[in-house]
Amino acid sequence: MECYLDNSATTKPCEAAVQAAVQAMTDVFGNPSSLHRHGFAAMQLLESARAAVAKPLSAEPGEIYFTPSGTAANNTAIFGAVRKNRRRGNKIVTTAFEHPSVEKCMERLESEGFTVVRLIPDKKGIITAEQFAEVIDEKTILVSLMAVNNEVGSVLPFTEIASVIRRKKAPALLHVDAVQGFLKLPIIPKKYDIDLLSVSAHKVHGLKGAGALYMRKGVQLPPYILGGGQENGLCSGTQAMPAIAAFAAAVKACGDVRENLETTELLNGRLREKLAGVQGITVHSPESALPYILNISLEGIPSQVSVNFLSGEGVYVSAGSACSKGHRSPVLTAMGLSAEEIDSAIRLSLSRETTENEIDSCVRALQNAAEQLRKKG
Amino acid sequence: MECYLDNSATTKPCEAAVQAAVQAMTDVFGNPSSLHRHGFAAMQLLESARAAVAKPLSAEPGEIYFTPSGTAANNTAIFGAVRKNRRRGNKIVTTAFEHPSVEKCMERLESEGFTVVRLIPDKKGIITAEQFAEVIDEKTILVSLMAVNNEVGSVLPFTEIASVIRRKKAPALLHVDAVQGFLKLPIIPKKYDIDLLSVSAHKVHGLKGAGALYMRKGVQLPPYILGGGQENGLCSGTQAMPAIAAFAAAVKACGDVRENLETTELLNGRLREKLAGVQGITVHSPESALPYILNISLEGIPSQVSVNFLSGEGVYVSAGSACSKGHRSPVLTAMGLSAEEIDSAIRLSLSRETTENEIDSCVRALQNAAEQLRKKG
Repeated sequence: MECYLDNSATTKPCEAAVQAAVQAMTDVFGNPSSLHRHGFAAMQLLESARAAVAKPLSAEPGEIYFTPSGTAANNTAIFGAVRKNRRRGNKIVTTAFEHPSVEKCMERLESEGFTVVRLIPDKKGIITAEQFAEVIDEKTILVSLMAVNNEVGSVLPFTEIASVIRRKKAPALLHVDAVQGFLKLPIIPKKYDIDLLSVSAHKVHGLKGAGALYMRKGVQLPPYILGGGQENGLCSGTQAMPAIAAFAAAVKACGDVRENLETTELLNGRLREKLAGVQGITVHSPESALPYILNISLEGIPSQVSVNFLSGEGVYVSAGSACSKGHRSPVLTAMGLSAEEIDSAIRLSLSRETTENEIDSCVRALQNAAEQLRKKG
Repeated sequence: MECYLDNSATTKPCEAAVQAAVQAMTDVFGNPSSLHRHGFAAMQLLESARAAVAKPLSAEPGEIYFTPSGTAANNTAIFGAVRKNRRRGNKIVTTAFEHPSVEKCMERLESEGFTVVRLIPDKKGIITAEQFAEVIDEKTILVSLMAVNNEVGSVLPFTEIASVIRRKKAPALLHVDAVQGFLKLPIIPKKYDIDLLSVSAHKVHGLKGAGALYMRKGVQLPPYILGGGQENGLCSGTQAMPAIAAFAAAVKACGDVRENLETTELLNGRLREKLAGVQGITVHSPESALPYILNISLEGIPSQVSVNFLSGEGVYVSAGSACSKGHRSPVLTAMGLSAEEIDSAIRLSLSRETTENEIDSCVRALQNAAEQLRKKG
């Protein structure tokens, strides 16, 4: 039985998403900026997609800006916020284990003279709101943190940061990279006073090629990708209609976020319980992690060896994130794990479509891996 | 009969493109950065797409970098070139009627202290290589021009600029926005010593959501969209696989560029000839324009009124470009046309799939427009 447990890298588009994309490639192929029948039909599809993506965030459709990817949403949010606020201060606060689409922006901003403070997670990937409170000050112009860490699944205190920013009288905008949290946790940006929040379609059974930035009404950022002024001027380039229509369809097909979370908690519990019976497995994800992600080490076996072995057994997982391909995980490094732990770590990532049978196949394959690879070694 | 003549805004994806996208949403859904079977299959699809897009440019696959759009390709080329070269000079040379995805970048660079020289086209949209020679100097770090103007179809002297740059001993990189020229003119960047060249999928019967930047081997630009290092570090974000696979399929399905050009010349000739018989029509496109674009005015009738009327007749054209929606065309303004001419201009744009029947329907509809709208007025 095939068992795809690399859903934090990408998910398989759901049937509704595929159908929506096909419709946007055939019947509704116009350019939403064209002022004739085909253009109007595309514009209508675009705006209904916007409303669909806004809904689970309890946002207004006008607060959703489509982008080509979660990465582009993060770039747009970060560079836009800094450009907007740069006369108000020089300091940016983030964490030491962000996704590269945040971390690389931070490195560029440092090269341009900004001061970036990166908070260090503990060995379980936990960072507290108090850590943010210790460093946010009146010169802080941006706070950017992920909702859920992409490699270990720890949930960051993104719900508590706005009040810290207020308390510290910082002019900071608050950006949350929610790529791994969207539709997995209930996230209501307005409830937590989040200014900017990034999501991605292909992590939730949509297509690769669409993301979105939530930008709170009243916040106005200069654009990052410049051009024809699409997306109300924030993100230019003809909208990726097939991927956007599919994004909306995938969001609608998601079902209840809390119910999915409960089901996934059961699956994660089953996985942890069964893995406790396999010799030499260490779990890196905290107990409190989002249950969609479980990071473990098979003691003494290099990550890529396990990943290859498992792929041969029809079980697909990753070593670190897909984006850090071939490099030692900067996430686990930031968490202070030992070199041995890091080099043997693998990430199992579930989706709303994962079944008990898949979990059981995965455990059997891991058991085989543990036995056969150690024998070889 | 429906007649879609807004192909410079967007084209209808061809059957092969739709099929390729479906395959990349179903069978080959992996993340090309994942190191297991599904990842490898996606990577293989990605690399074969890269080779397919490289082929009509006679480029090496490694010189093609996928981007989310032609707009993103232009942003990446322009900001990357300037970042790379900024210690070598302060001057940028471009034209006064570029697409907004180039012009808006120029405006931002001006706000950052760069000097931008914009060459003025004549009333037919022509700019000569001599005009470039007059302004390119030893402080010029970038020359950016379109291959084909998007509103009138005039062909710019992009084949001659590299030798001007050399003669003037400028450190400039040469960027060509070939979004309207790709697969319509034979364009071989290496033959003309072009460093950077942008193309877009949805203008050539691919999907909205993919573009590409040709970057000559040996040229290395810093990235613009930062993150996981996809596309050899130049353009981060998980690749938009369905749109990229479809892009490759559309390129393969294109047929012979020169043959298509000859066919389109005949269609354009037919169109011009028949329009000569309609009272009060002025042609703005030069005789030498790429035959895929014909810009005309219906004397005394506001553009949007004609566009609406034609849409009602099943003929879809645009007023200016889709990207300048609702604003007075900056292209025609730069060309020095009168306010009356600009406000009544419409663009008819053909594709390799346009037929004689469509041309004839369009002429009939324009004739009706000229008669009925003038009567009203």
